[in-house]
Amino acid sequence: LHSSDALMHPQSSFLLRRLARRLADVQNPVGRQPFRLITSAAAAADDEREQQHSRQWKRAALGAGLGLSLLYGYHARRAHADAQAHPAIPPSDPAFQVPSRVDLPIYKREEVKKHGKGSDRMWVTYKMGVYDITDFVESHPGGDKILMAAGGAVDPFWALYAQHKTEDVMEVLETLRVGSLDPTEPAPVQTVDASDPFSTDPPRHPALIVNNPKPFNAETPPGLMMDNFRTPNDLFFVRNHLPVPKTDMEKHRLRIEGMGLNGKEVDLSVDQLKKKYKEHYVTSVVQCGGNRRADMQKFKKVAGLMWEGYAISNAKWTGVRLRDVLIDLGVDPNDERIRHVHLEGADVDPTGKPYGASIPFEKAMSPEVIIAYQMNDEDIPKDHGYPLRLIVPGVVGARQVKWLTLVRLSDVESPSHFQQKDYRAFSPSVQHGDELDWNSVPSIQDYPIQSAFCLPASGTTVDREDGTVDVAGYAWSGGGKGIIRVEVSPDGGKTWFSAEMEQDPDQNQDKMWAWTLFRASIPIPAGADTMDLVVKATDRSYNTQPETAAGIWNIRGLLHNAWHHVEVKIRG
Amino acid sequence: LHSSDALMHPQSSFLLRRLARRLADVQNPVGRQPFRLITSAAAAADDEREQQHSRQWKRAALGAGLGLSLLYGYHARRAHADAQAHPAIPPSDPAFQVPSRVDLPIYKREEVKKHGKGSDRMWVTYKMGVYDITDFVESHPGGDKILMAAGGAVDPFWALYAQHKTEDVMEVLETLRVGSLDPTEPAPVQTVDASDPFSTDPPRHPALIVNNPKPFNAETPPGLMMDNFRTPNDLFFVRNHLPVPKTDMEKHRLRIEGMGLNGKEVDLSVDQLKKKYKEHYVTSVVQCGGNRRADMQKFKKVAGLMWEGYAISNAKWTGVRLRDVLIDLGVDPNDERIRHVHLEGADVDPTGKPYGASIPFEKAMSPEVIIAYQMNDEDIPKDHGYPLRLIVPGVVGARQVKWLTLVRLSDVESPSHFQQKDYRAFSPSVQHGDELDWNSVPSIQDYPIQSAFCLPASGTTVDREDGTVDVAGYAWSGGGKGIIRVEVSPDGGKTWFSAEMEQDPDQNQDKMWAWTLFRASIPIPAGADTMDLVVKATDRSYNTQPETAAGIWNIRGLLHNAWHHVEVKIRG
Repeated sequence: LHSSDALMHPQSSFLLRRLARRLADVQNPVGRQPFRLITSAAAAADDEREQQHSRQWKRAALGAGLGLSLLYGYHARRAHADAQAHPAIPPSDPAFQVPSRVDLPIYKREEVKKHGKGSDRMWVTYKMGVYDITDFVESHPGGDKILMAAGGAVDPFWALYAQHKTEDVMEVLETLRVGSLDPTEPAPVQTVDASDPFSTDPPRHPALIVNNPKPFNAETPPGLMMDNFRTPNDLFFVRNHLPVPKTDMEKHRLRIEGMGLNGKEVDLSVDQLKKKYKEHYVTSVVQCGGNRRADMQKFKKVAGLMWEGYAISNAKWTGVRLRDVLIDLGVDPNDERIRHVHLEGADVDPTGKPYGASIPFEKAMSPEVIIAYQMNDEDIPKDHGYPLRLIVPGVVGARQVKWLTLVRLSDVESPSHFQQKDYRAFSPSVQHGDELDWNSVPSIQDYPIQSAFCLPASGTTVDREDGTVDVAGYAWSGGGKGIIRVEVSPDGGKTWFSAEMEQDPDQNQDKMWAWTLFRASIPIPAGADTMDLVVKATDRSYNTQPETAAGIWNIRGLLHNAWHHVEVKIRG
Repeated sequence: LHSSDALMHPQSSFLLRRLARRLADVQNPVGRQPFRLITSAAAAADDEREQQHSRQWKRAALGAGLGLSLLYGYHARRAHADAQAHPAIPPSDPAFQVPSRVDLPIYKREEVKKHGKGSDRMWVTYKMGVYDITDFVESHPGGDKILMAAGGAVDPFWALYAQHKTEDVMEVLETLRVGSLDPTEPAPVQTVDASDPFSTDPPRHPALIVNNPKPFNAETPPGLMMDNFRTPNDLFFVRNHLPVPKTDMEKHRLRIEGMGLNGKEVDLSVDQLKKKYKEHYVTSVVQCGGNRRADMQKFKKVAGLMWEGYAISNAKWTGVRLRDVLIDLGVDPNDERIRHVHLEGADVDPTGKPYGASIPFEKAMSPEVIIAYQMNDEDIPKDHGYPLRLIVPGVVGARQVKWLTLVRLSDVESPSHFQQKDYRAFSPSVQHGDELDWNSVPSIQDYPIQSAFCLPASGTTVDREDGTVDVAGYAWSGGGKGIIRVEVSPDGGKTWFSAEMEQDPDQNQDKMWAWTLFRASIPIPAGADTMDLVVKATDRSYNTQPETAAGIWNIRGLLHNAWHHVEVKIRG
């Protein structure tokens, strides 16, 4: 509120209010559209789905039994209506061109960079314009997310949040203008060392939290995770084991070979897959087997990439059923000789060996398993398997092979290192330095039940007078088991409150491949100066998460799914 | 050893040693025979199964990584060989008749009863003989299990343990003879009050631990639980909701009706089922949803029958697939209108309403779901559903309807009280006295992962000089998820040892309907005068048990699966 006084133009206060209203209304309607695995039925059933979704909300709210606000559901419905009333203007519209401002100074990118998060005056660029957002942050309907762009371009963030593409926003933006980028400065380019095996890696979104640059491994920023039921492609976590391979939609071939094909071997192009088989889609989670490893490390040292808890994302995957392709090629779904299906990607190690994995044959023949060529209705991005990725809903990410080149039917598991000597969680009785008997533990397939907070961040300070702390996050369980409840605790697990759940209205509790997003407002206990917030979820089989890592700790830090804790401080 | 001196006959010491050897060798070979769900494949594959079993043992042992003794597996194999070398003599053989002994006194049953467990001289009867077992207990290869019979007949126990039916045993027994039962005393009869709705309940084995007499609810004695991979029918836990109905193999009819049958309704006799459909069998656990409720009660008050942890048993069930029957009657397995299958039993409440439940249609059409008419190769006993019970492997006991009279295909769940207002586990945030919204939680179907000790009993004292404590128990998970490991801790969960596992060699990790029995020898920590023994298991989806009831406590005390603790005292 006070920040509006500091703005330079007289109409800015009004514009800001208008902007705030608009941004708050248009809360990413795309991510909330309902959908179905069976595409043919989708068009006819819109109305029924609306009602079903509403029933599901109602049930979730009743389940909470605590009179938690329905605000979120209200927003979601209002956003849908609003998006139709105020369609986004295409960016090619002249309204989105930044005017040239000869009255203002010219800056180099290096100068803008000095005005990053935490500096006295924080700047962003949009196209060739330079803007001072310092006094605007408090009015920004998206809160301090805007600071992620400070010192650089806001463009890649606006690409994620369509609600910025309105004339109102452009009008407000110009009120913050402090200058222009130097048009003679060349656009920043990545210097490419052709001898670097990672030189073909694609550019990435600046908001990703990088765990390891080569091979590239990065988490979705938790502060943006709750904005979309389907994670935008640019923010989808990336777990690469090897350099991103050079692939080509036209030249790419998927070889299918092995048992049950009567010696047949076929090489299918993406185009052949698309033309020959019925298209299906599934909204499904991919979660790294090492997600929340950093959290397990707090219990006792583990080895591996230190994922915090955001090596998990949820997308709509479109393609053809592996089942349809195999049956068409003559495979008998009841062929008892076939036990496993090997998978290989185009990504290779320095010796030329490809990434490999396998899944059980019975799972491979399930209708939810899809050879995907689209991710959230676009070609799958390079980091996520362009042009083909096998989506195996309910199963650990390591088996959902990217850049898919090979499907081999077999009586044994894949001999790949990644199947045989990785992604198996040992007993807590196995210690660092022990000789490892990899055959003593099965390869991870279905994931156990999981949940974690995205908000607030650990160490956040909240005001006592607010009365409540808003929390939000995700829950998911492998094998298609639906989440039946998410409970949050203000006091380390002594008392619990049921959270509101957002679920895919077109998936049921026995076939829930998408995640559950949860939200709750937790009362601040009187007298407390810190809160030990805890979340844990329960799935359709009534499996729940263990309290601590005491019973699940393993040397590789895999499958950490103990209760997630976040500590917040109370001020006042 | 010292007890043999006290025996009356000179040859008794030799006989005792021979007896001990024989009993230890013949460790219930019947329960360990391998088997298959697909019966047709069974005969040909015996050798392969032997090898597979041996591989599984090897893996379990390697998994233990602790050099735990393979003694148990050795025993199991030796028992098999031994049973063939020493076939049990049929009880009709004159060798099993008790000789008349005019030299010894005659006793009434009332007199024998005074010589029960804990009395100075402990007696048992076998047929008309009366025996003093006081000095024999220490030599008894089955340990103090024999005391379960003290003060009464040993006959029902011998019916469970075929190894007693040898001439050696009979010879030893006679050395303990102190008298005979009065032949003029009439056999004890239950007085029947025809107005009592429970008057048709069958007689039960004296070893069952009765939780409630009417309706009858009883646990398997944990001390006998580990003796058989398949629980003997007489010791199988009983959970009746209503009086046991009068049923008749010839007159019993199973009605099949509802959606997808084109208005057809059929009433099938047991004989028709047997003649018309292929026979299949499955070894599968039944576990009450309230198992281990007494343990949850220790955390915080719950309501319901106080099951300790032995309302779970494992049997071989033979019958026909529900799937085969329904498909034969014209049901399309892909009929999307049918969502649930209602089940009713012949047991009725005082208003005439039958016990009812339902399972999802997809589960009903799975090959493991069997309309069983045999339990461990005998007609199903009255307490367990004679003549028909629906076996739904992986699912809570309450849906495995006994005395099955009705299968109804429907688009909704069963309206039965037992489906709608029971067997649903609320959130820990729901307290006693709260208004219950039963629709806010789903009906329990698949069971979560479970494990518990059978031995030792809590409060047992062990000798420090023994060096180790032998522990044993069961583990199981719903939905067919195999147990991949069982870990036991001597110190409340700080350190863990992998236990040896006994599993059905013909079931795989993704379709494991039978339980896992585990055994381990845990080192006694130096200096400790008590041990807080803990067990917890991990299933194929890497789900594991929560440490405490903190996150799973619910007012009805359902599905308690926290770590099981047993406290033992160390002497010396």
